[in-house]
Amino acid sequence: MTEHSENSSLIATVKYCKIGNVILESTKQLGDVTIAYETYGILNEKKNNAILITHGFSGDAHAAGFREHEAKPGWWSNMIGHRKAFDTSKYFVICSNVLGGCAGTTGPSSINPNSNNPYALDFPTMTIADMVHCQKKLIESLEIDKLLAVAGGSMGGMQVLQWAVSYPEKIRSAIPISTTMKHYPQQIAFNEVARQSIMADTSWNNGNYYNQPHPERGLAIARMIGHITYMSDKSMQEKFSRNLKDKDHTFKFTSDFEVEGYLKCRGDTFVKRFDANSYLYITKAMDYFDVSGNKFLPNAKNKDIKFLVISFSSDWLYPPYQSENIVKHLTLRGYNTTYVEIKSTYGHDSFLVEIKNQTKLVIHFLEKVSKEVLYD
Amino acid sequence: MTEHSENSSLIATVKYCKIGNVILESTKQLGDVTIAYETYGILNEKKNNAILITHGFSGDAHAAGFREHEAKPGWWSNMIGHRKAFDTSKYFVICSNVLGGCAGTTGPSSINPNSNNPYALDFPTMTIADMVHCQKKLIESLEIDKLLAVAGGSMGGMQVLQWAVSYPEKIRSAIPISTTMKHYPQQIAFNEVARQSIMADTSWNNGNYYNQPHPERGLAIARMIGHITYMSDKSMQEKFSRNLKDKDHTFKFTSDFEVEGYLKCRGDTFVKRFDANSYLYITKAMDYFDVSGNKFLPNAKNKDIKFLVISFSSDWLYPPYQSENIVKHLTLRGYNTTYVEIKSTYGHDSFLVEIKNQTKLVIHFLEKVSKEVLYD
Repeated sequence: MTEHSENSSLIATVKYCKIGNVILESTKQLGDVTIAYETYGILNEKKNNAILITHGFSGDAHAAGFREHEAKPGWWSNMIGHRKAFDTSKYFVICSNVLGGCAGTTGPSSINPNSNNPYALDFPTMTIADMVHCQKKLIESLEIDKLLAVAGGSMGGMQVLQWAVSYPEKIRSAIPISTTMKHYPQQIAFNEVARQSIMADTSWNNGNYYNQPHPERGLAIARMIGHITYMSDKSMQEKFSRNLKDKDHTFKFTSDFEVEGYLKCRGDTFVKRFDANSYLYITKAMDYFDVSGNKFLPNAKNKDIKFLVISFSSDWLYPPYQSENIVKHLTLRGYNTTYVEIKSTYGHDSFLVEIKNQTKLVIHFLEKVSKEVLYD
Repeated sequence: MTEHSENSSLIATVKYCKIGNVILESTKQLGDVTIAYETYGILNEKKNNAILITHGFSGDAHAAGFREHEAKPGWWSNMIGHRKAFDTSKYFVICSNVLGGCAGTTGPSSINPNSNNPYALDFPTMTIADMVHCQKKLIESLEIDKLLAVAGGSMGGMQVLQWAVSYPEKIRSAIPISTTMKHYPQQIAFNEVARQSIMADTSWNNGNYYNQPHPERGLAIARMIGHITYMSDKSMQEKFSRNLKDKDHTFKFTSDFEVEGYLKCRGDTFVKRFDANSYLYITKAMDYFDVSGNKFLPNAKNKDIKFLVISFSSDWLYPPYQSENIVKHLTLRGYNTTYVEIKSTYGHDSFLVEIKNQTKLVIHFLEKVSKEVLYD
């Protein structure tokens, strides 16, 4: 077992798993699918200490540690590592890039084996269930029969719920954070405006831009809209107030206020790492997501799944009442469910930054879940 | 005095007032300014029954009644008319299109007398105070010394507050609705994304599009963003649920959900009546708006102004706490202030649709204000 001192850095290495052909929910087949993933910690002999982390809309497989020659750690590195919430000295942690993504897993920017060109809009429509289907194939290829836990926030939380719906026998516990059982009209509306912004960019060219300038401006605006919804009125006030960024400009509609400069900068950074067509496909998958009502564990074969549901008070994109709906459903169906609404001003971003409280909850929950499995 | 039976329609006729040159807050001069306005009811002999209605961001002078050959009544026609909140059998009601607008008042699409071409970006930067300055000139041209009331919602509410700051001696009462003393970062952020969307449209062409195709796509997206902020999570659920609009399409990213179709339709309608450069200038004026702290009636010469402040519970664009801040300021400064937060699920749009409660409040308030003036 690898020893990690508290000060040592986790080294992250991206790996690729070829999972072959995948039949999608639409019944279409997608050939030669590759999944990019990273793992942290050691899989024990019984292979029962594995935890799958599912990422949010713009995340990737790089959830923790540092990749070689990179200064920026993984997107949930404050939650995954030695003595952290997902303790890599106890658990084997896996994170994979979602289907349709653009960070190693097959998506619209991948080469279509039939044409030897990027799929672009020939990539099939896909769903959250398809993402989870691919993750199950990855888990099987790692010879893991049952996950100790699946955990993730936002769209990651949708995948967590989908795991419970699609493969209840394959998970011991689930931690859906800042999420919902279905996308509501306001959430769809924000996604739709973002998509319209991408498709309005003439460089988008019906998705065929891979050999020419990309629709960067439309994509940057889409990201700016996203960022507003990730923060809260309050956190924006705390971060920016009404400070003017820079009055030293001649063009009338240059960004004056700090908040404008911040959004622009975030938009411009995003286009360097994200594919516009992935934006379209993945947001559609979110919009189609609906495991509410009788779709949600109606006749669960595995009543032993334990749930830890977390929401944040200032999250207005996935407000606490949507987590409460999940909890109501689970409780009515007799599941062991813990629910905590954490007070925070950080809005939807809270799940990425409110580490202290989440850590306490997750450590305690995983102790409870693993007690029965790891130490019996 | 014109008699209106309850069933008769108010006939609306747009008029134009040439107010000459205007010195703006920036010290720049704007020449030959025209103000488009409508009036309803009769100005009494003492000229003390006049009420100015100020419109929101995308409104215009057509606040009430029907224009000839038009089927759609004015934007606040349910509030202005015989026996309505602003009762035209008692009061002389005026509404003018704001400076920078595109519905008859001088704005970036007007002809620049110096070049004989539309101003486009040669139009000077302007503020809410400049809009109000022009309204004061209009009121003076109508030989009205003092308004009985100024009333308006959203950006109209900002103008109401600005009247109290700039010309306290010219108003007897003020009704700011669904508004704020200053624009906060989240409000600026939404405006900035909308502006970026317009400017990203290649047809925008640095504002020079008047003789060629207009930046309709960018403007439509800007409007879609606006519409999301005007509604509430709840009102969207009540209106759209997750209904699919039409599954009968072949293109993958056609709008599937009702809410997407609604937003697109609203965006497409908007571009037919609104000028993209006006969008830029007016949103900037809102973003610069700040009459908070010592700017707000610090040493009022007229402690007799009465205020009726109204907010709506589900308005998340101009949330009730921002109205409460106005009320705190007014109360501390000794103003006679009535505040009501109306329970509603309609979000920011409430001020346009929650007529019954607003009507009661406004009728009662105007009775109180006019008692001292009209009947002494």
